[in-house]
Amino acid sequence: MQCTTSISKMIEWQQAMKTSQQTIGFVPTMGFLHEGHAALIKEAKKNNDCVAVSIFVNPTQFGPGEDFEAYPRNLDADVRLVSQAGADIVFCPEAEEMYPTDGGIRIVPGPLADRLCGASRPGHFDGVLKVVLKLVNIVQPDTVYFGMKDAQQLAIIETFFQDYNCPAAIVRVPTVRELDGLAKSSRNVNLSDEERNEAPAIYEALQQAEVLVREGIAIEVVTQFVEETLRKKTSGAVDYVSILTYPQLELPNEISQDLIVACAVQFSKARLIDNIIFKREG
Amino acid sequence: MQCTTSISKMIEWQQAMKTSQQTIGFVPTMGFLHEGHAALIKEAKKNNDCVAVSIFVNPTQFGPGEDFEAYPRNLDADVRLVSQAGADIVFCPEAEEMYPTDGGIRIVPGPLADRLCGASRPGHFDGVLKVVLKLVNIVQPDTVYFGMKDAQQLAIIETFFQDYNCPAAIVRVPTVRELDGLAKSSRNVNLSDEERNEAPAIYEALQQAEVLVREGIAIEVVTQFVEETLRKKTSGAVDYVSILTYPQLELPNEISQDLIVACAVQFSKARLIDNIIFKREG
Repeated sequence: MQCTTSISKMIEWQQAMKTSQQTIGFVPTMGFLHEGHAALIKEAKKNNDCVAVSIFVNPTQFGPGEDFEAYPRNLDADVRLVSQAGADIVFCPEAEEMYPTDGGIRIVPGPLADRLCGASRPGHFDGVLKVVLKLVNIVQPDTVYFGMKDAQQLAIIETFFQDYNCPAAIVRVPTVRELDGLAKSSRNVNLSDEERNEAPAIYEALQQAEVLVREGIAIEVVTQFVEETLRKKTSGAVDYVSILTYPQLELPNEISQDLIVACAVQFSKARLIDNIIFKREG
Repeated sequence: MQCTTSISKMIEWQQAMKTSQQTIGFVPTMGFLHEGHAALIKEAKKNNDCVAVSIFVNPTQFGPGEDFEAYPRNLDADVRLVSQAGADIVFCPEAEEMYPTDGGIRIVPGPLADRLCGASRPGHFDGVLKVVLKLVNIVQPDTVYFGMKDAQQLAIIETFFQDYNCPAAIVRVPTVRELDGLAKSSRNVNLSDEERNEAPAIYEALQQAEVLVREGIAIEVVTQFVEETLRKKTSGAVDYVSILTYPQLELPNEISQDLIVACAVQFSKARLIDNIIFKREG
């Protein structure tokens, strides 16, 4: 497996792949990789001639006071995981390589970022869209793979790709979970032992919410039930619990079918998010 | 020459060109083409294996009360000019083809749009960046050709391409002028006879401004001189006269070298812009 920190080397690689008619699958990551990322890479490898992975803790998607400095990093372990999962090249640029200039042009996600994580992380999805467009322009993949844990990110990127005719296809890959149901996340290592024991309550509450919605319980009632459950069963602060249409992220009406129930819980040193996307029967 | 209104046909064409290793030059236009556009197409043809031209009066870059409806159109004449200038394909989509969905994601140009035309056309450059990114994603050219009459547009697009790693190169093509110096523009047909007679005063005033700046006259004094000259010699309303660094579009200091002197004049049914970019000796 090749490894490069250089944009021009990365471009050379993808041009060589294109010249030899090979399809490129791409998995953008922020490193500290786990089985969720491995699943993305394996899915990419299964459906493409070659796979590129990027590892870049993107400063522009962290707000002031957020955990950019505390975000866990372990490049050596990451490179091993990426190689074992079958990637052909890993792109690990420094921030100076990615952001040598800034003319102040932003991609602003609009209403899709008003809810869920966007409400408490202003500017976060501007930074996500900027780095994703930059990476896609550099790697020029046929297909990009995203995990469904970051469901709002995925909805915004899908909308951007569709509205702006971005040439890469997007594949949604299901969230990988620990045995107790906790969604795999790079931030889980920043949980205390006590918090780690409480954290599976998040997915349990979301599963209960799906059952209740399917049973016809009103959205507001289910939302409140999840909030109260999370308050009772965890020591974290509940940032939000929301049930919305997916991927439009609008308030559901009677006939809405594809729904997401999503939440964010702020523990002492880790803000965890999770969601379930499901189809409500008509 | 081929002609298509379909995005998927356009993509098929560029994929075929890429498969046969041909380089693509691209000239995006809003139609009602003149010798300025022909110069762009010829420049593209000289340096690429094949040339695509788009003709699309982009609604998202016109503000309320601007001249979207009155913008001149003549597709038959345009197709003849494009063919004679040597293009291989012309892409003329309808608005519904280009904008079937709108998730509300915008590209916001920031400080570069605060001055010149951006100051009196809020949202204009959002619309320009959106359509340019869409077209470039559809056509996937090696090189895109822009005229220097729209100097602010060019500066913003160059900055966007650089900051977002857009894979196409940009070539600046000098403004083509009438014999009396008036910059060729699709909007010139909307001038009355009297206004057409006055309009060459714009370029004359800009040329005088260059001479005065080179002679060391203060920027503010030169700016005021051009404003007064335009008021005296034309019946139009002067929207702005500005002397800035180029392409940063900042207020010049003593040591700034690359300068633009630019202006916009609103006539009864046409808003004309023009500029001169020049290097001041140190």
